Amino acid sequence: MKLHFRIHNECKTPPKLRFALSKKIRTFALPNMKFEIKQIGTIFSPYQTKEECPVQGIFVPEGQGRVEVFPEYEAALDTIETFSHIILFYIFDRAGEIKLSRPTFLDEASHGVFASRHPCRPNGIGMSIVQLEKRMKNILEVSAIDVLDNTPLIDIKPYIPRFDIREKANNGWIETKELRVKPKNRE
Amino acid sequence: MKLHFRIHNECKTPPKLRFALSKKIRTFALPNMKFEIKQIGTIFSPYQTKEECPVQGIFVPEGQGRVEVFPEYEAALDTIETFSHIILFYIFDRAGEIKLSRPTFLDEASHGVFASRHPCRPNGIGMSIVQLEKRMKNILEVSAIDVLDNTPLIDIKPYIPRFDIREKANNGWIETKELRVKPKNRE
Repeated sequence: MKLHFRIHNECKTPPKLRFALSKKIRTFALPNMKFEIKQIGTIFSPYQTKEECPVQGIFVPEGQGRVEVFPEYEAALDTIETFSHIILFYIFDRAGEIKLSRPTFLDEASHGVFASRHPCRPNGIGMSIVQLEKRMKNILEVSAIDVLDNTPLIDIKPYIPRFDIREKANNGWIETKELRVKPKNRE
Repeated sequence: MKLHFRIHNECKTPPKLRFALSKKIRTFALPNMKFEIKQIGTIFSPYQTKEECPVQGIFVPEGQGRVEVFPEYEAALDTIETFSHIILFYIFDRAGEIKLSRPTFLDEASHGVFASRHPCRPNGIGMSIVQLEKRMKNILEVSAIDVLDNTPLIDIKPYIPRFDIREKANNGWIETKELRVKPKNRE
């Protein structure tokens, strides 16, 4: 990959036109940056193995977990107890080989990992919507968890139906797939 | 923060009981790891400044953007065109000072950054649900974008209503907040 720069256009044309302009003037390649992410806590769950862990939390609402945010981040949880659901972001720290396109648990066809929730992805970031049952200082009790026990937490955001529900969205290739027993030796 | 270890319990008790056990036996402190995340592409949008950028994409559905995934990841997009909506993950690369609890655009009260979508957070990871208009190889045209122009992309996941809609979720402290003009000098 080439190194990259981009001209910032400071003119006062309206945003839409400016965007059109920027499409034309960007003749250099794009940057390729790296970022350091730090663990901010740990997710505990009943699931020790990938076989035990649900495909998605919504299908096992009774699965209980515990999120321990490191005490130095406790202030970042202020008013989180007003939400019924939160989104956990974590690292798939036990993911296997990264293949850009591969079958998932749901069918035998290959799908790009950006078109699935496969854990083996270029940046192994996982996202799970869970129900927030209780907060005790820096500890969150949650349910509908689909995360392996002892997983490093990197962020929490509130789930906000006003912002996050897209009623008209389709389910893409997953539309017609039934949940099934996880095929063996598949991640 | 102390260094930490955790005993893995290999017994064959059912997951729920094993989890209860693990709560008791974890007497050591938690690990504190760091992870390297790499840029996998770039998000282009009409928004050059935080003032121009919508608070949430759902409120400005006409805002058009373009996602350029680096060509070496094109295979990871296989079948993404079957989805109407996708979730972009990116780095808030122009975020200011991190304060764990602070007011947002929506009201004057302080909220923990894990209880808001504030960009200035311990790991500056942003998440936006956008509509996928068109795919051309490694380029995605999207709408309802709320991301600054030229933002580093780190992951894409499909938005899947079957997995991601929680009809009964509340809006927490945001329930009663009206959208308003962004206060000046606030991020």
